[in-house]
Amino acid sequence: MTYTIDSTTEVDLPLAGELGRQLRVDSIRASTSAGSGHPTSSMSAADLLAVLVARHLRYDWDNPGEPGNDHLVFSKGHASPLLYAIFTAAGVITEDELLTGYRRFGSRLEGHPTPALPWVDVATGSLGQGLPDAVGIALAGKYLDRLPYRVWVLCGDSEMAEGSIWEAIDKAAYYRLSNLIAIVDVNRLGQRGPTELFWDLDAYARRARAFGARVLQVDGHDITAIDRVLGDAGANSGDRPTVVLARTRKGDGFSEVEDRENWHGRPFPPAMAARAIIELGGERKLRVRGPLPKPSGHPVRPDAGDGQVRLPRYELGAKVATRKAYGDALAALGARRDVVAMDGEVSNSTHADQFAAAFPERYFEMFIAEQQLVAAAVGVSVRGYVPFASTFAAFFTRAYDFIRMAAVSQADIRLVGSHAGVEIGADGPSQMGLEDLAMMRAVHGSTVLYPSDATSAAALVRAMADRPGVSYLRTTRGAYPVLYAPGEGFPIGGAKVLASSPDDRITLVGAGITVHTCLAAAAELAADGVHARVIDLYSVKPVDTGTLVAAVRDTGGRLVVAEDHHPEGGIGSAVLEALAAAGQRDHVVTQLAVRELPGSGTSEELLDAAGIGAAGILQAARALLG
Amino acid sequence: MTYTIDSTTEVDLPLAGELGRQLRVDSIRASTSAGSGHPTSSMSAADLLAVLVARHLRYDWDNPGEPGNDHLVFSKGHASPLLYAIFTAAGVITEDELLTGYRRFGSRLEGHPTPALPWVDVATGSLGQGLPDAVGIALAGKYLDRLPYRVWVLCGDSEMAEGSIWEAIDKAAYYRLSNLIAIVDVNRLGQRGPTELFWDLDAYARRARAFGARVLQVDGHDITAIDRVLGDAGANSGDRPTVVLARTRKGDGFSEVEDRENWHGRPFPPAMAARAIIELGGERKLRVRGPLPKPSGHPVRPDAGDGQVRLPRYELGAKVATRKAYGDALAALGARRDVVAMDGEVSNSTHADQFAAAFPERYFEMFIAEQQLVAAAVGVSVRGYVPFASTFAAFFTRAYDFIRMAAVSQADIRLVGSHAGVEIGADGPSQMGLEDLAMMRAVHGSTVLYPSDATSAAALVRAMADRPGVSYLRTTRGAYPVLYAPGEGFPIGGAKVLASSPDDRITLVGAGITVHTCLAAAAELAADGVHARVIDLYSVKPVDTGTLVAAVRDTGGRLVVAEDHHPEGGIGSAVLEALAAAGQRDHVVTQLAVRELPGSGTSEELLDAAGIGAAGILQAARALLG
Repeated sequence: MTYTIDSTTEVDLPLAGELGRQLRVDSIRASTSAGSGHPTSSMSAADLLAVLVARHLRYDWDNPGEPGNDHLVFSKGHASPLLYAIFTAAGVITEDELLTGYRRFGSRLEGHPTPALPWVDVATGSLGQGLPDAVGIALAGKYLDRLPYRVWVLCGDSEMAEGSIWEAIDKAAYYRLSNLIAIVDVNRLGQRGPTELFWDLDAYARRARAFGARVLQVDGHDITAIDRVLGDAGANSGDRPTVVLARTRKGDGFSEVEDRENWHGRPFPPAMAARAIIELGGERKLRVRGPLPKPSGHPVRPDAGDGQVRLPRYELGAKVATRKAYGDALAALGARRDVVAMDGEVSNSTHADQFAAAFPERYFEMFIAEQQLVAAAVGVSVRGYVPFASTFAAFFTRAYDFIRMAAVSQADIRLVGSHAGVEIGADGPSQMGLEDLAMMRAVHGSTVLYPSDATSAAALVRAMADRPGVSYLRTTRGAYPVLYAPGEGFPIGGAKVLASSPDDRITLVGAGITVHTCLAAAAELAADGVHARVIDLYSVKPVDTGTLVAAVRDTGGRLVVAEDHHPEGGIGSAVLEALAAAGQRDHVVTQLAVRELPGSGTSEELLDAAGIGAAGILQAARALLG
Repeated sequence: MTYTIDSTTEVDLPLAGELGRQLRVDSIRASTSAGSGHPTSSMSAADLLAVLVARHLRYDWDNPGEPGNDHLVFSKGHASPLLYAIFTAAGVITEDELLTGYRRFGSRLEGHPTPALPWVDVATGSLGQGLPDAVGIALAGKYLDRLPYRVWVLCGDSEMAEGSIWEAIDKAAYYRLSNLIAIVDVNRLGQRGPTELFWDLDAYARRARAFGARVLQVDGHDITAIDRVLGDAGANSGDRPTVVLARTRKGDGFSEVEDRENWHGRPFPPAMAARAIIELGGERKLRVRGPLPKPSGHPVRPDAGDGQVRLPRYELGAKVATRKAYGDALAALGARRDVVAMDGEVSNSTHADQFAAAFPERYFEMFIAEQQLVAAAVGVSVRGYVPFASTFAAFFTRAYDFIRMAAVSQADIRLVGSHAGVEIGADGPSQMGLEDLAMMRAVHGSTVLYPSDATSAAALVRAMADRPGVSYLRTTRGAYPVLYAPGEGFPIGGAKVLASSPDDRITLVGAGITVHTCLAAAAELAADGVHARVIDLYSVKPVDTGTLVAAVRDTGGRLVVAEDHHPEGGIGSAVLEALAAAGQRDHVVTQLAVRELPGSGTSEELLDAAGIGAAGILQAARALLG
């Protein structure tokens, strides 16, 4: 059979049913050819997706960047064979690519979808992330783009056990995202056996309704019923998100595996695949495109406008917290209409509240739900907005899986963590970010910044706005003297030498709060007649190797690195890695860091106890000088 | 007023009301004396806790280790003044300690509670963690200890926005934890303003009921009603956990702040505190203890029994995946009756299913809820069990905040992450743990292990059982040759030199999969007549500095470190940090790691593409040799 249907013709229901069988067959063919993948998890959702793409998804396949397009997110990313079978049916990839590319080295048809494909918005495969990301896209649609596109999400039933799914439905309801439709493929079987709730659609319904969603239930293999329900879901005129609960069978359409355990994530051996394809009525070559969106007339990327960003200016020596400088700079950046901010219920501490007050229409309160906070940033970045998301540095650890996946999505997001390190004082270790630099440095393609003063903080916030990938800025709770005059440049990848002379005998490297303690230690060394170079390593990744190598060369190879962070993976590691990469052989580096579990106390007490106050640095420097 | 009440007398309701006022007053006194803390968040819950500790909590204050004791977890850890005021009322800390210790340097009365105090089970302060931890304690009570203790948890309303809370209620219902009671202090106000749901107790009730809990509602300032509801909650004869929704007022009892915004986390200035104390009827000196538990007769720590652990034995050269060795060793460890396992719905991949099959009564399936997975491990560790929790290495990033807090709790938990690195092949980057070593190394007091073969994997699993703190084992998907004979020792903190001669000119350092690629590269170098030392760095933290320093000394200071991980914070950093700490000046280290975003492919293709296969190591070695 070969039909070619284009969007000028409405695909009728029998043909959508045929498409469902084709998607199953092609999912089987792709996974069997690759020798890996998830055919049965694709087959359970094939009818749902066939009806969706043939009759409801408004999508211009030739222009994936068209702002008016609906969005389709596979939160159950392991159903990638189904997604790629859809792309084949839409004619945007060839059957040859499907069969020879899937899961192969160098191919864009990866085991789980990524935006290496222009029709994929976000990388999925870590379950429970697609729906939170989609909440961000739907926020953009309703509040920023103000376009009528819908965001359709295919969820698995197993991933409904992830708390992040409920953060997402909660926020979708709070923000009245009637443009969001989650289709849950309730096939009753997870990887190692049945799910918690089996086919208890009513239990899922009670949960989704309690979290504020409109719920529709459907037999996920009844084409007519699916069509009616998706029509209803897509035409949502209310103010609630929709959750479609579809009762399905894993492996549906192939009697040897249908609704059976032990077929998760297993391709069919070739002979078995051949039997499956026969049972499904053979291969088909349908080329199907559904309805087009109304052209939006919007540019592909949102217009930044021509508002001028006037960074705040700070007096040298004035005491200003870098978190306050973040708030000031973010509010200044708000002159760009594409800049968006969000926070996890601590905006009066992070100072994101300044942006919220100035630009309430571009600020999203995410309450205490850090996974959704980061996912919302990823989601609005899909539409080209420039999100800044803030909470305490410690609490970004809650969202590490989302941050890691944002890098796989190649999303451009900006995270700002305040209250870092023991410097925070009395609140104690639960609130101290002491792992964040290690965590953020290990993210692929990330940028990690840690300013010591308000001038550099503001400059770096501005630089982040144009930085691709995941960038992270660490701010400090307390107010410390402004070290740099207004207008000073802080290129990402640079460092500042705050003190230097031809007589330098040692180098003190700090970032953030420890720049101040390094300066104090250098002053004491100077009183002893010892010249010390002081480096402000505000760009932790990428790091300024040249400045470090020069310091090693000029100061007898002696470096003390002080950081308000655990000793592993942070600033000390960044310095050592940089010197190693430069092939710098002859140096000795003393790493000062927070080695014991801290408690409460004042900033000074805790910095001193960790040995990263001026006294500890001085002692380490003297020891190195011998 | 001074009353001294002990557990031989039942505290009557009017006196419980008095205690509620005392707890408010003492919360105010503590936070005002410290100049920081959260009095208003303590005041809202004071009546609830007064009635609980005076009349319902079965607790032997003189024997906090008594296994029959009820447990009390402050999930809203910022209400620490209230908790410490309770300890004062119980007479286990003095008023002097409360007033001069709270939030001070060196004191155990930290800003947020930690187990530095013997009456605190787990550290809290990162919201949404106390309840998941309590699920673990309740699992231990019902299924392991089989004791009638109850686990009472004070939750804040703001933290109900954390997905982890819903993972917890879901699992509590799934495991029919009628011994778990969550008391939600619905005071309507978060840090920066109102919560999402204000005082909509019915909305909370719908959610909790939909997730399987029994729900009771109460006016949180009506002593009589509280008493009735807590009595009902504690006498739960059903099979559901209980959620008590209490409508309260933040700052209750002091008209200047009651139910007002902008008083979160702010102590009252002294004059204001004095007015508050007058309004609350002045200071009291009630000493109140509630009912005692029935003595359990159990030892404080669970009995490990005398079952002999017989580790699996593997033939040299046989191909066995380290994840399989984990399953084998864990099942062998099951001979110890205190060993418990849990997994996040991937036990047939991690091989935890072997333990589940052998010891179903000590295995807990946590489905796809990694935060609850780690929290359950923390919870059962509170009762002295020896938990092993497993999922894919990548998915432990989902629980990083829980892992970080487990370290603050000084919990002894064991995490095992399978499918690490690009070695996993076709599934692609969403499933590749490439940040886990950096993440786990940065955890305070952690142990990080990465065996290269089945023999060492099994030995290290056994060593983890007796290891304090948070320990992490990384396993590999594919099967590789067994390198070590049965019985070989693998002390934590050690390393193995797999090839060495007096003529070694370079050292190749690997761990896990890269030990095999280092060996292959060494073989090729040997064919060129170049002797290379090969180090299996199976203990990534602590690391064997002596073996590394000796290698530097013996092999011309030339090291190549190859790791299946991003280049930041992993094995390369561990080597550099160790050499720096040893003051080793003259070395040059080439770090080979996964520098580009990987896609799908075979293990070999992906290892080679990342430059951590034999060819990449060979090339780096030749470059170093010049």
